[in-house]
Amino acid sequence: MPDAAVPQPYRVEVPLRWSDMDAYGHVNNVQYLRLLEDARVIGFRVWFPDRPTLLDEGIVVSRHAIEYRAPLTYRPEPVEVDMWVTHVHGAGFDLGYTVRDPEGVGEHVYAVAETGLVLYDFATARPRRLTAEAREQLSAHRGEPVRFRWANR
Amino acid sequence: MPDAAVPQPYRVEVPLRWSDMDAYGHVNNVQYLRLLEDARVIGFRVWFPDRPTLLDEGIVVSRHAIEYRAPLTYRPEPVEVDMWVTHVHGAGFDLGYTVRDPEGVGEHVYAVAETGLVLYDFATARPRRLTAEAREQLSAHRGEPVRFRWANR
Amino acid sequence: MPDAAVPQPYRVEVPLRWSDMDAYGHVNNVQYLRLLEDARVIGFRVWFPDRPTLLDEGIVVSRHAIEYRAPLTYRPEPVEVDMWVTHVHGAGFDLGYTVRDPEGVGEHVYAVAETGLVLYDFATARPRRLTAEAREQLSAHRGEPVRFRWANR
Amino acid sequence: MPDAAVPQPYRVEVPLRWSDMDAYGHVNNVQYLRLLEDARVIGFRVWFPDRPTLLDEGIVVSRHAIEYRAPLTYRPEPVEVDMWVTHVHGAGFDLGYTVRDPEGVGEHVYAVAETGLVLYDFATARPRRLTAEAREQLSAHRGEPVRFRWANR
Repeated sequence: MPDAAVPQPYRVEVPLRWSDMDAYGHVNNVQYLRLLEDARVIGFRVWFPDRPTLLDEGIVVSRHAIEYRAPLTYRPEPVEVDMWVTHVHGAGFDLGYTVRDPEGVGEHVYAVAETGLVLYDFATARPRRLTAEAREQLSAHRGEPVRFRWANR
Repeated sequence: MPDAAVPQPYRVEVPLRWSDMDAYGHVNNVQYLRLLEDARVIGFRVWFPDRPTLLDEGIVVSRHAIEYRAPLTYRPEPVEVDMWVTHVHGAGFDLGYTVRDPEGVGEHVYAVAETGLVLYDFATARPRRLTAEAREQLSAHRGEPVRFRWANR
Repeated sequence: MPDAAVPQPYRVEVPLRWSDMDAYGHVNNVQYLRLLEDARVIGFRVWFPDRPTLLDEGIVVSRHAIEYRAPLTYRPEPVEVDMWVTHVHGAGFDLGYTVRDPEGVGEHVYAVAETGLVLYDFATARPRRLTAEAREQLSAHRGEPVRFRWANR
Repeated sequence: MPDAAVPQPYRVEVPLRWSDMDAYGHVNNVQYLRLLEDARVIGFRVWFPDRPTLLDEGIVVSRHAIEYRAPLTYRPEPVEVDMWVTHVHGAGFDLGYTVRDPEGVGEHVYAVAETGLVLYDFATARPRRLTAEAREQLSAHRGEPVRFRWANR
């Protein structure tokens, strides 16, 4: 039985599109980041039910790192994106992801990735600070740093 | 006068599309990687004029890292992607990039990035080794590691 | 109770992506055709369970016509694409579509469209003839011509 | 020698992207409409140098019709889009297009198409009327109706 006190990665099923494949017949490496965007859009609605506070005022991607582990071909079954918080700082936070087969579909891990997000106030064109409430919401999804292979070479 | 012995980043002008912008009215963070793909496609035709050897047999992206520095809005003028080799290993190489305004258009740097590339033999589904000739071609474009800001936090 | 003898449009739920929106904050007109592509890919797997016969040997879009009826904004709920056969000829067929809200989500019609499809033999680079079996499969989905408004101006 | 009094189609060179190709290795049928969007964005800056009047207040695609004539594969050379006005009405206008090889690159016609455009006032959410000035600007680009093949079957 999972311990409620231990944060778990949040699981989002993200549908593929046939057009995610490129001329090599695999889901194009750039489209993986599109799948991660979809995962954030789907997941954040649940993480931040009071969305105006965190999202509608603006949240900006400051960086991505992604490592590809296996080729992915279009299929009607979605991929599962496991998503968790790897770091929280004054004006934003980092997300880790694993892109994998959903249970029952397969056992492949297609990619691991990390995204830096910064809260942004579009009106004043300046970063914003995370509210105490948002920090609280994020703490429910804290997890380990992403273990990239290339970092160890 | 630039010294011919000092490798220079390779400069590619990459046109934007209006559709690169997202609902926030900026070039979407994922599309930056599309611009880098374009830069590779354009640049590698020049770097490897004997393309069959290196490219047509297959080259696969193994990872990306990208750091966004300034928002970019669609304009008819292209962006300039400066591209260089940061690392060469037995079966592939890493590329560094700076996405910036072309001379005369502006002085912004929009992003810095790095891509890991692996040579792949689609027929045998296995990595291939870089030929001596390809290593020679790559050495003409060697440069410094990418200086990401987040790596220093 | 629907009469089994009367062909019904085939209903496919197609998920939206946040990135389908353009800088105007609406699903971009070009992306509607991407949604139709998705609907065909999803629907044809059911229409032609013996896919190799019809699809895997090649099917090519020869034309599209689409009329936009209402602006569409990203939401987590999919759109419903109703899809039916408007015309069958020796080497292909035409599809009609309505893009609408699924029942319970809303009552908007976002677009009506028609696509011409031609069976193609990639090996010989020539059109192929529909088999008797494929004609039979298509007849289960026959419907009325698409009623475009602009055709009457 | 072309007679200055006879309106000529407006020619725009539109660059391809490698990612315009789909898993069949051809520029995907949906991406042709993306190329037409690019052609409008590039061309309208010249057609309407006083852009705020016509474009910045909003212009909406009401319909597309496109007929594919030949497969197109990515190449570094752009395609040429010839663009002209086929119809002007109170609140909008129709554009015709031919997508072809630029002179010196080839002689293929890849597609012919037509787009209906409606002027729209985003502030009031209602169509706007073309100004006398915009009608004058459009008259410089009037041409024949698009000759679709399928319309004659």
